[in-house]
Amino acid sequence: MNRDASRVETFSDGVFAVVLTVMAVELLQNGPARDPGTQLPDALVHAWPTYLAYVITFGIAGQIWLGHHNMWRYVVRVDQVLLMFNLLVLLFVAAIPFTADLLSDNLRGSETEQRLTAALYLGTVLGESLFFNLSWWWARRRRLLHPDLDPQLARAVSRRLVVRPLLYTIAFASVFVDPILSLLLYLLLLVGLSLIRRPGDLPRSASAEAGGEVSGRGR
Amino acid sequence: MNRDASRVETFSDGVFAVVLTVMAVELLQNGPARDPGTQLPDALVHAWPTYLAYVITFGIAGQIWLGHHNMWRYVVRVDQVLLMFNLLVLLFVAAIPFTADLLSDNLRGSETEQRLTAALYLGTVLGESLFFNLSWWWARRRRLLHPDLDPQLARAVSRRLVVRPLLYTIAFASVFVDPILSLLLYLLLLVGLSLIRRPGDLPRSASAEAGGEVSGRGR
Amino acid sequence: MNRDASRVETFSDGVFAVVLTVMAVELLQNGPARDPGTQLPDALVHAWPTYLAYVITFGIAGQIWLGHHNMWRYVVRVDQVLLMFNLLVLLFVAAIPFTADLLSDNLRGSETEQRLTAALYLGTVLGESLFFNLSWWWARRRRLLHPDLDPQLARAVSRRLVVRPLLYTIAFASVFVDPILSLLLYLLLLVGLSLIRRPGDLPRSASAEAGGEVSGRGR
Amino acid sequence: MNRDASRVETFSDGVFAVVLTVMAVELLQNGPARDPGTQLPDALVHAWPTYLAYVITFGIAGQIWLGHHNMWRYVVRVDQVLLMFNLLVLLFVAAIPFTADLLSDNLRGSETEQRLTAALYLGTVLGESLFFNLSWWWARRRRLLHPDLDPQLARAVSRRLVVRPLLYTIAFASVFVDPILSLLLYLLLLVGLSLIRRPGDLPRSASAEAGGEVSGRGR
Repeated sequence: MNRDASRVETFSDGVFAVVLTVMAVELLQNGPARDPGTQLPDALVHAWPTYLAYVITFGIAGQIWLGHHNMWRYVVRVDQVLLMFNLLVLLFVAAIPFTADLLSDNLRGSETEQRLTAALYLGTVLGESLFFNLSWWWARRRRLLHPDLDPQLARAVSRRLVVRPLLYTIAFASVFVDPILSLLLYLLLLVGLSLIRRPGDLPRSASAEAGGEVSGRGR
Repeated sequence: MNRDASRVETFSDGVFAVVLTVMAVELLQNGPARDPGTQLPDALVHAWPTYLAYVITFGIAGQIWLGHHNMWRYVVRVDQVLLMFNLLVLLFVAAIPFTADLLSDNLRGSETEQRLTAALYLGTVLGESLFFNLSWWWARRRRLLHPDLDPQLARAVSRRLVVRPLLYTIAFASVFVDPILSLLLYLLLLVGLSLIRRPGDLPRSASAEAGGEVSGRGR
Repeated sequence: MNRDASRVETFSDGVFAVVLTVMAVELLQNGPARDPGTQLPDALVHAWPTYLAYVITFGIAGQIWLGHHNMWRYVVRVDQVLLMFNLLVLLFVAAIPFTADLLSDNLRGSETEQRLTAALYLGTVLGESLFFNLSWWWARRRRLLHPDLDPQLARAVSRRLVVRPLLYTIAFASVFVDPILSLLLYLLLLVGLSLIRRPGDLPRSASAEAGGEVSGRGR
Repeated sequence: MNRDASRVETFSDGVFAVVLTVMAVELLQNGPARDPGTQLPDALVHAWPTYLAYVITFGIAGQIWLGHHNMWRYVVRVDQVLLMFNLLVLLFVAAIPFTADLLSDNLRGSETEQRLTAALYLGTVLGESLFFNLSWWWARRRRLLHPDLDPQLARAVSRRLVVRPLLYTIAFASVFVDPILSLLLYLLLLVGLSLIRRPGDLPRSASAEAGGEVSGRGR
């Protein structure tokens, strides 16, 4: 029965792996050495938005992968709806390199450009977090999780997960006030959320018992 | 013995994962920020065929992945012919981003262009569904399926699978009457087929017993 | 102990999956819809070398994947040298899309172009088959294969494997006589080799006993 | 419990597989057949930096994969920090095609260009080896390794791993003396390091007992 969940993980990992390296293809093709006119140091400095987009994509997609990894550890069975929700999560994840690239290209553009690209970027992250919540909610409702998972822990995970789309919505709404403020708010949230010790996380140290409830699952 | 089937799944998942994200590379490279002349909002709106192709590719390849996942759960052994059929399925799957992109680029073109690109797109999907049927038929004939699989269920799956290429052939033929009608027909079929509860599907809820017949397979 | 071999397979499958879909990226970017001047049907027909390269790459890389899959079923342990040989196999496999594309682009070129691109293509396939043979030879010599594998079968597989680089060398040498003849010879060999029933292959039907000697390996 | 480590390996393998084949996409797109003006042989020769970058990327990323494979064999559990360190290793690995391409493009450039691109390339390799060391150090400290792993072996692996960033730092520093000398030094180190028989390596022959201490782990 484990099996279905494990193939979904392999497949999702493939998508994440390609998303993380898509920006490396972009780096190669926007390589400054391609422009014969300019000096190399200038050209390298000039391409900074691509590097920024590379780091943003890696940071965000990496963090989403960590969350995905944490959640799917508890899933032992899958059904059609859960797979559909997971595909929709991946649809938004795969759009992150595009919106991160747009965003970093227009950070110094006009306010309309900033607003539009920040909205697109935050919309992508918001869409991902919404469907991520839906997949956890569905897995709980349909009892697809590990039977030994503490129901209290499952509820705590739900509460924690729901915080992300709520805060992203606030960041998204504030784009229409000030795009740069909205991105700063988003970064603050991101760093804040990853520092808080959360229930259902992987244990921070091996001696922690938090992961013990699924230890009987093995492979 | 499980092993062969599981490596085929890993390999196919890799191909599916890249296919889903190939359009993300295309999004990046057709990024509107690359054209310095036009305004960003106009440029973004102008690139709508690429977004459409991204969503079509994700939708179709995602659905084919679901079907592939459903079928291969039952396969416990592989032989050369089955691997060959699976490679041919993947050959057509990997061509979907190209034909979807062509199609969305020419949706507002002349009737010849619409007809040609709709025919190419439907031909790709038809080819995939034909070889998918062949692989199920071969796996049944050569007894490569799980021995505990109910023969009645296997027959029901066969009947269901054969519907897809038949309906795709009709959509394909109607391209020569009216290309847009043909695509609408195709979309209708797609949505219709995914709404109907089918035998051999993953259970929609965890309490359903439909998946139980292979539960002893484990991993 | 199984474990090492299984991770090598996952990794190699990833490389094969990307190689198979690399040409799909190329199809997208050479998409005829990008040239506004010409008619779509003409543009599509004009791009035939890219389609040919796509099919060649899929055919060859798919066949090599089948061979890789067949061989690695018998490997239960790995050492540094075997991993190195496997990486060199993958180095040549990953160059196939490039040389196949060059070849199909220059099929109607001057004789120098035909000769050069046919030599490059055949050299890539030759390099892959050499290192593939080396990895089988090393795995046998260092007893990395399944202990229950019939030594007679192992010898038969060695004999069969060594045929490929020998015949490729002949095809490679005949490039300097006539490039087109050399490619025809190569295709003939390819089809011939895949039709002959060979020892150590996956059984063609499930009732065949050829795969039975490793059935105890499980997973 | 094995499970977490095994998903991390699948994911990392996906990234490595794409990185190895990213240069193949670059080969295709810098294909000399694209330039109609020049002769094919000249164009092929002219593109040598791309081939060099392809081989460098394959060589380096392949070697890092071997090291990654060696290390993760001993890891049985993961925590958030270890996953973060692993993501940072992958961030630097995915940048290798870009910096290797820059480097090979500028090998015959001015001294400033040589210095800058050599520094970027060596910086990427240095960053990777630093985070690789950090992940081993963390896995040891947090007792995420296999309990039967000989502590003396673990210490020996640590000592060996720490040599790489130290030597890379020397190569990095010597860029500011002479860029070409620095690269030669780096190549010498690379070949030297891979020839020395090191504790914790995969056994070179199957009869070696070095890998025995984790043989009970199975899968």
